[in-house]
Amino acid sequence: MKLRFLLASLLLTLSLLVLAQDPQLHTASPTELACIKVLLAQESAWNKGDIDGFVQGYKDSPDTLFISHGIDRGFAEMVQRYHHEYPTRAAMGTLSFSELEVHPLTEELAVVIGKYHLDRSKKEGGNADGLFSLIFQNTDKGWKIIVDHTT
Amino acid sequence: MKLRFLLASLLLTLSLLVLAQDPQLHTASPTELACIKVLLAQESAWNKGDIDGFVQGYKDSPDTLFISHGIDRGFAEMVQRYHHEYPTRAAMGTLSFSELEVHPLTEELAVVIGKYHLDRSKKEGGNADGLFSLIFQNTDKGWKIIVDHTT
Repeated sequence: MKLRFLLASLLLTLSLLVLAQDPQLHTASPTELACIKVLLAQESAWNKGDIDGFVQGYKDSPDTLFISHGIDRGFAEMVQRYHHEYPTRAAMGTLSFSELEVHPLTEELAVVIGKYHLDRSKKEGGNADGLFSLIFQNTDKGWKIIVDHTT
Repeated sequence: MKLRFLLASLLLTLSLLVLAQDPQLHTASPTELACIKVLLAQESAWNKGDIDGFVQGYKDSPDTLFISHGIDRGFAEMVQRYHHEYPTRAAMGTLSFSELEVHPLTEELAVVIGKYHLDRSKKEGGNADGLFSLIFQNTDKGWKIIVDHTT
């Protein structure tokens, strides 16, 4: 638990450093911190093989959209696809997010863009890299992803 | 001019039919109509070889983001890339949007998802197909795209 906390703190610090590299140096806003915390929690859950924990980053709503090669409509469909595509711990590999940028739109909405890297054995499909853009909404259960476009 | 008007009307009607195929049959809202009109204007400008007309669909702001293989930051950089990637009328081919869906977020923001098809000679790179998600903002110059993620 202590190690996990240290790791999370390190990742959070690194994320803030990335934010700080913006030409306009700034202190991370509550919205930035809140969205980054959700993504760090997703990374941590994924890397424990906990898909049901991972998907807690999304809003549990039939309107939630996940766009990749196709479009998943609704939280339930997306969760099902995650379980289908990643049936084992080995298939999940090790996920890391980087170059996270939070762009607040309103008090209740933000866009987050960033990169992901999946470290995985060749047998399981090999490594994967891509870009994502996420729309976060400040819901009654905290900041949650309502649209995920991952490539 | 008359023909172009007829074509635009036809496309608008088709778009509304697509919207109407939603299980919850509904009348297109002003936001839906406004966003679709922007996309139809983009399609029309593109197919006349008018990149500067096409980019009028985006907000002229340094915060505008265009995400594809990489990230363009700001309207100016994006316009430059469009001109660079599509230097001739032949390179632009013929663009068509389909399966447009407008998801209003607030009175002033909406997400639009859809598909594009580019019809182009093999010599110029051939046809292309993909998905996009767009964030539209109701600006003082009308509804404009502030984030484009196209794959």
